[in-house]
Parts: sequence; C-alpha cells; structure tokens
Amino acid sequence: MTVRPAPLLAGVLVSIGAAAILAATPPLVPPDTRTAMDSVVEKALATDGALDTLRGLTDTVGPRLAGSAGDRAAVKWAVSTLEAQGFVNVRAEPVEVPRWERGEETGAVVSPVAQPLVLTALGGSVPTPTGGLEAEVIEATSLEALDALGEKAKGKLVLLWKKMDRKRDGGGYGETVGLRVAGPSRAAKVGAVGVLLRSVGTSDARFPHTGVLRYDEAVPRIPAAALAIPDADLIHRLLADGRPVRVRFTLSCRTLPDADSANVVGEVRGREKPDEIVVVAGHLDSWDLGTGAVDDGAGVAISIEAARLIGAQPRRPRRTVRVVLYANEENGGRGAAAYVEAHRAELGRHVAALEADSGAGRPFAFGWNAGPSAEGVLKEIAASLARTGIEGIKAGGDGGADISALKPAGVPLFGLRQDASRYFDLHHTADDTFDKVDPAELRTAVAAAAGFVYAVADLPEPLERIADTKPERVRK
Amino acid sequence: MTVRPAPLLAGVLVSIGAAAILAATPPLVPPDTRTAMDSVVEKALATDGALDTLRGLTDTVGPRLAGSAGDRAAVKWAVSTLEAQGFVNVRAEPVEVPRWERGEETGAVVSPVAQPLVLTALGGSVPTPTGGLEAEVIEATSLEALDALGEKAKGKLVLLWKKMDRKRDGGGYGETVGLRVAGPSRAAKVGAVGVLLRSVGTSDARFPHTGVLRYDEAVPRIPAAALAIPDADLIHRLLADGRPVRVRFTLSCRTLPDADSANVVGEVRGREKPDEIVVVAGHLDSWDLGTGAVDDGAGVAISIEAARLIGAQPRRPRRTVRVVLYANEENGGRGAAAYVEAHRAELGRHVAALEADSGAGRPFAFGWNAGPSAEGVLKEIAASLARTGIEGIKAGGDGGADISALKPAGVPLFGLRQDASRYFDLHHTADDTFDKVDPAELRTAVAAAAGFVYAVADLPEPLERIADTKPERVRK
Repeated sequence: MTVRPAPLLAGVLVSIGAAAILAATPPLVPPDTRTAMDSVVEKALATDGALDTLRGLTDTVGPRLAGSAGDRAAVKWAVSTLEAQGFVNVRAEPVEVPRWERGEETGAVVSPVAQPLVLTALGGSVPTPTGGLEAEVIEATSLEALDALGEKAKGKLVLLWKKMDRKRDGGGYGETVGLRVAGPSRAAKVGAVGVLLRSVGTSDARFPHTGVLRYDEAVPRIPAAALAIPDADLIHRLLADGRPVRVRFTLSCRTLPDADSANVVGEVRGREKPDEIVVVAGHLDSWDLGTGAVDDGAGVAISIEAARLIGAQPRRPRRTVRVVLYANEENGGRGAAAYVEAHRAELGRHVAALEADSGAGRPFAFGWNAGPSAEGVLKEIAASLARTGIEGIKAGGDGGADISALKPAGVPLFGLRQDASRYFDLHHTADDTFDKVDPAELRTAVAAAAGFVYAVADLPEPLERIADTKPERVRK
Repeated sequence: MTVRPAPLLAGVLVSIGAAAILAATPPLVPPDTRTAMDSVVEKALATDGALDTLRGLTDTVGPRLAGSAGDRAAVKWAVSTLEAQGFVNVRAEPVEVPRWERGEETGAVVSPVAQPLVLTALGGSVPTPTGGLEAEVIEATSLEALDALGEKAKGKLVLLWKKMDRKRDGGGYGETVGLRVAGPSRAAKVGAVGVLLRSVGTSDARFPHTGVLRYDEAVPRIPAAALAIPDADLIHRLLADGRPVRVRFTLSCRTLPDADSANVVGEVRGREKPDEIVVVAGHLDSWDLGTGAVDDGAGVAISIEAARLIGAQPRRPRRTVRVVLYANEENGGRGAAAYVEAHRAELGRHVAALEADSGAGRPFAFGWNAGPSAEGVLKEIAASLARTGIEGIKAGGDGGADISALKPAGVPLFGLRQDASRYFDLHHTADDTFDKVDPAELRTAVAAAAGFVYAVADLPEPLERIADTKPERVRK
C-alpha cells in the first residue's frame, strides 16, 4: 500500500502530502522535507546497502559478546565501516563492559530414563560445581507458582516451564522473560539449587535461548540454564508421568574482570543546525551463540544505511543525524549509560532518538514517547511512509533498551516496530545467522527509518520533549 | 478425498470397491477383505496408538545408534512393547553390529576471519589428529568437480557444497547424498587431508546433518564432517571473496569392536495360512544426535500399530503379519543381512514386505516391486485407501534399505511413500524429536499401512514375485 493522491490530482499534489490535503489543513511536514523523504525512501527500497553492511558484520566479525575478542573486532569494524561510508566525526567512545564467558555446558536426564539434554547457561549465571550438579526436578509455570513451592523446592532443580506466544509485535517476550530474569533468585529463595528454564522463544527447533538473568544479592546465586524447547517439554512430559525425574548438568561459565569496549559513533552534519542531534541507533554487541544477525546486526545495518542515504541526499536535513552503535546492550547496558555520561552537556540538543532492535522484518509502526503536541506531525510522517509498510504510530515504550537512557533528559524517543513474528525463533540462539534475513524486508525497514529520521531532523521546530521523564525498565 | 460410490448406489456398493464396479469388471480384492480393510482404516484414523508408541520409544529410550547403550535399551523396549500389545512369537534375534562413537567435535574458521563453526562427524569417520586438523579450504560442487581439482586439492580441506532440493517425495536426497557417501575417499584420491560437507538436508536451521560415509580401501581414510548449512554457506561466501580461507576442526570419534544388538520381531498369526508371511518393517536404530522420532521411530510406531490393529480385527487375514524392527539400518545394514540369514528357509513363504522409513508425514503412494501381474490388484488396493491420502502406486525402488535384502529371494517389496517435504529438515539431526510429529498425519500413515498389509495378507492368491532379483543399492 502506498499513500498517493488520487490520479486526477497527481501532477499537483504528489509532493505535498496526501493525508494533509485530504483533511484540508496545511501539512505539518513542509513540502521540501516531504520531497526529500520520498527520495530517500525510494533509494532505500532500491538498494541492498544494509544487507552488505550486515554481511560484513556477521561474516567477518560474527559473535561479539561484550568484552570478547569479537566485541573488540566489532568496534574496529564499525569505525572503519563508518569511515568508509563517508560519515564524519567517527569515533569509538570508551565503555568499560562486564565480561562473562560461557565455557563448556552439558546436561542429561539421568532417571527415570537416560537422555542427553540441549541446554545453555543464562547470561551471568554462576557455574555448577566442577563435576556437575544433580538433583530432582520440580516444575513451576510462573513466578507466583515458584514462590508457592516453598519447602517442596528445597534441594531441587526448578524447571520454569511457560510457553511464549508468537505475536507480530513480539509482545509474547515481555510476558514470559520475567521467568528468566527473576526466576533464578526466586528459586534460590525457596531453597532450590539450580534452575532449568524452558527457552523464552517461539521455535520448536532444538536451540536453547540464552539471555541475562538478574541475581538478587539477598540470596545465594544458583546456576541457571535454558533448555531447548523440545528438551524442556521432554522433562515436562516425564514429570506428568508421575515418577521422580533427576537431571545432571554442568556449566563452566565464569565472570572475568571488566573489559574495554566502545560505543561507535558517526555523523551526517546538519545543514542549518548542526548542533542539534537526531540519534539513530542499534547495538553492536550480540550474544555469543549465533552471529547476531537479527539481534542486532540488522539494527546496526539499518541505522548505518538509513543515515548514509540521508547523507547522500543533495539537500541534507537541518540537523545532524548521529549513528550510535551501542556497546553491551545484552548483558549490562553499560554502553547506554556511558553515552549519557559522555554527552550530558548536549543532551538538551538531542531532539530525537530512534532505535532499531527488533530484527530485520518489515516495519509496521513507530513507537513514540514525546510531548503530546508531537502527535500530529508524527502521524503525518507515518502516513507518508505507508509504502514501507508503516501503518501508523503507537504510543508508549521508550524506543529501545539503549535510547531509554535518554529519557531523563526528555529526549523524544522512538522505536522502529517491525514484524517480529519470526524474530524470537532466532533471537539469542545459535541460529541467529545472516542467511535468515530477507533482503526485501530489510530494505523496507531501512526505508522507514531513513524517511522518519530525515523528517524529524528536518522539521522547522523540534518535537515537544518528554514531560514524564521517569526511567522505565526495558526488557532485552 | 475418499473413494466412495455415487450417492444413488451407496447402499448397495459401499463394501465392494468403487473403482472395480465403475470399470464393470469384478473386483480383484474380495468383498470381505475390503470390508475388513475399511474397518482397520477406520480404527487407525480414530486412535493415537502410534503416537503413544512413538512417545515411548523417543522419551524413554531416545538416541539409539547401533551398539550403544540406547540401542540395547531400544531392543528391550521393543520386546516388552510388542509383548504388552499382544503380539505372539516375540523375540530379539541377535545381530552383531558395528559400533562407532562420536566423541567431541569442534571447528572454526581461523582466517581470514575468526568464526566458530557448527559441525558434526560423518558416521564412520576417522578422527582428526588430537590437536585438530588445520588447512586451507577448496570447494567442489560435485564429485566430478572434486575429481577435476587434481593437484589443487593436495593438502587441503575440501568443502563439498551442493544444495539439496525440497521435494514431496524426498528425491532431492538421492541427488545429493552421493557427495557424503563417496566424497571423502574421492577427496583423499586427489590428496585432500579432510572433508567438510554442506549438510545434506533442506533446513537452514543451524543443525549439522550426519549420516554414513563409505571409505574406499585403496586410499587413506581422511576425517569428514558435515557443516550446518549456514556455516557451509559462510565459508562459501568467504571463498567467493577470493581470499584464502583456513579452517581448523577436531573430531574425536572412534570405531570400537562390534557389539550385540538384535532385530526385534513379533507376529499376528494368519487364520488360514500362518506359514505365509507379510513383513511390515521399520528400523529400531537411529542416529545419535536426535531421538530418532521421524527416522525411524515413526516407522517403528507405524509398523507396530498397523499390525496391532490388524490383529484386533475379528477376522484376521489369511496369512501371518510379522512386524520386523531392524537393527543397524543407519550405519551397516547388519540387521537386514541377519534377518535374511536367520530366515533363509522361509523366504519363499514371505509373500510381501512393506517398509515405513520416510517419517511421520501423510502417505501419498505405495512404491512397488513385484511380478507384473500384481499391478491390477495393487492399483485396486491403493484406490480403496484414498481416504488415507494414497493417490496410487509407483513402480520402482526396493521398498526400503532393510527389506531390499529380501529382493534376491523374489519377495514382493513395497515402500510406504509419505510426504517428505519437511522430513529432511529433521532427519539425521539433533532436531529429530517427538514434538515434530503431527498426530493427524501419523494416523493417516498408520491407516494406509494397515489397510495395505491387511489386503496383501488376505488375498486369495499371493502376489507374483519379483523376477529381476538383482540387488539394488538403497540410499539411507
């Protein structure tokens, strides 16, 4: 679907903004801004620049967990990529990141049957004892049910077993991931010795799905692993048979001293107000199991390509577009904090930030959080991007885990909402690889981001800032 | 689609066989046989007995590579399952099987980039040296292209890179698997030191696909591993970039002394000619990576349930139906050979054999190999099973890897042809697990097998035997 005027009027109205004309009110997006938006969208839909960039990151760097050799290689890659693509003020801004290493991991059902298990440590987990940890398994399907186990959980492994729903907006994740984040310490609170989690994902393929846990300092840290869904369901069926089930697993993961990493930044300078900044962001780090193609290589590639196309326009936007490739989104958020720290003096001149961290699928909306007067122009911008798949704007959320740190400064925050129906088949698993990305869908995401960023960077007046600047916890 | 008479004639003709009546010739399948076939099909479509049996095998035994502890557990499970389900003459017939163990396996691209690789040893491979094997990679897309490498392959790892087509009848496998079976020795012949194979499968999920190789005794045995498709394609892209690519991999697999296993057999005795035998077969062994649900737990479950339903009919067929659950189909075929050896005296009284070794999908045809006069009655049997999805019969093939050993004795051979569109997404990978099986599809496969076996076991005269009894190599 594209938003175009009726054929009769085409010659006159094509660059003015059909939605506004039809409503018989003057457009909020100026005609020359709209013309440039159309041009950048057109170019984005016709090139595979983001795909090439994504291939570069995933093929030549691959996995890049914070503090790893891959993370350092990713920073180098990002600097040289931004320089090669003509960005200015390209720099790696130092971030000290946590460092956690996976090591070996094995597991098996040992009774009443013998079956190897496919599992992986949750990010930040403590290891098991060297020889492994063996105990009887008890199941809980929610945090409340886990709390209610009480004494029955003592000395046991808790299987946290809850299905995640497949939804276009990826909303099933938020409904389920609390089990992963808080489950281990809640289990320790009732005396459990370890946690086995049904992977928080939507695919029945036999990949375990990692991601961070958060230990509560008031209780002992117990080792926690995600089971591939077929393996979690095997234990679930065996438990339903009524006989005691024992599992043994071994994790040799460890936390090392903090390491050096960086946020990588590059700019397209604004033609009139170069000191006012629109951020377009993804995160450079990834989990270690796959090559981080959809999480968040795609967001990195979308951000770079959207900004590159904006920079290639004969008429650049009024304000500076700054690509920010954040460090350590996955297991610490140190990149987000470091960016705020390093740029505190200019946060008042950050007029907007858009984060792309929902994969490589077709976009359908912009999440938005800004002052209420922004709504009208945002709706008009969204309507003018209908050909990229955008259906409208969606209030709420803080754009993404990284840019949410800009909320206390009142920066208007936006999230590129993409079809995430398949995202959680891949996200945080070994199967998050380059081949899973559909080039045509990726182009639409670049087009939507490029059009949106061009518009907010070019509006005569900045958008109204966020009034309620209380930080919100964003789920990763 | 069901084959039923037109509504006007329904009351009179329902049990006589519509196809035959419409052609105005007397049916070749007697009416009372047809009545019993309809009854057994009806029951098969209404029960989940095969699913329960499959769950028992996959959940309580799991992986069962020939000679392993799982293989021994599978034999025990099979004997007790057949006994519990009321079969007679239940026995484990000894088979000495080869024993190969996987061990540890790792790999990585070491230059021009650093990337871990997901790979698995091909069945029967020799190990790499203990510290691993590192060399430059050279690619070949066919056996002929491999031969043509000549001197260029010397000291290299050969990447055998060919895509497998997804087809309903699974025919893409036969077009591709030759690279796996013969590739390692053909590579050794031109001086290669190891082989990396693009997995012979249809899924882009990051599972490597194992399976046997066959070493040629005239050349050195070199280690060979299958790469998950995303990993093979990564190397393929890196090679296309034109810089030398080096890979290091380590396999610690080993061949141990032969071990004891068994074919497991159970019978439903015939009411008139109990010494004449119709075999219905699957194979009990599986590869070690998954739990062998579709390969060939499904065939085991289909065979057992089809025969059980036949045995539960008030009017049993004339001849004996014998379930044969073969040992060591995957990496040796010793079960097939041992069955022939043990039953040589009665092979002349084997009137037919049907193998189910194409997964748990909906059936669409019976492959057939018998004397030409059998065609008419086989067509009629197939037409009467249309409601199970059967579209007809398909000449050629020897039914399956196990029963093909019965060909020299002239036994009419049949293969249950099932929709294998998704079969090679799972087959020989860690993802071959119980949850992948669709209960409704499995019921149709049981129904088709049960109806067919009932018919051939109940026909007044046996089917004409195979004239051309030259053995054919069947691909696994």
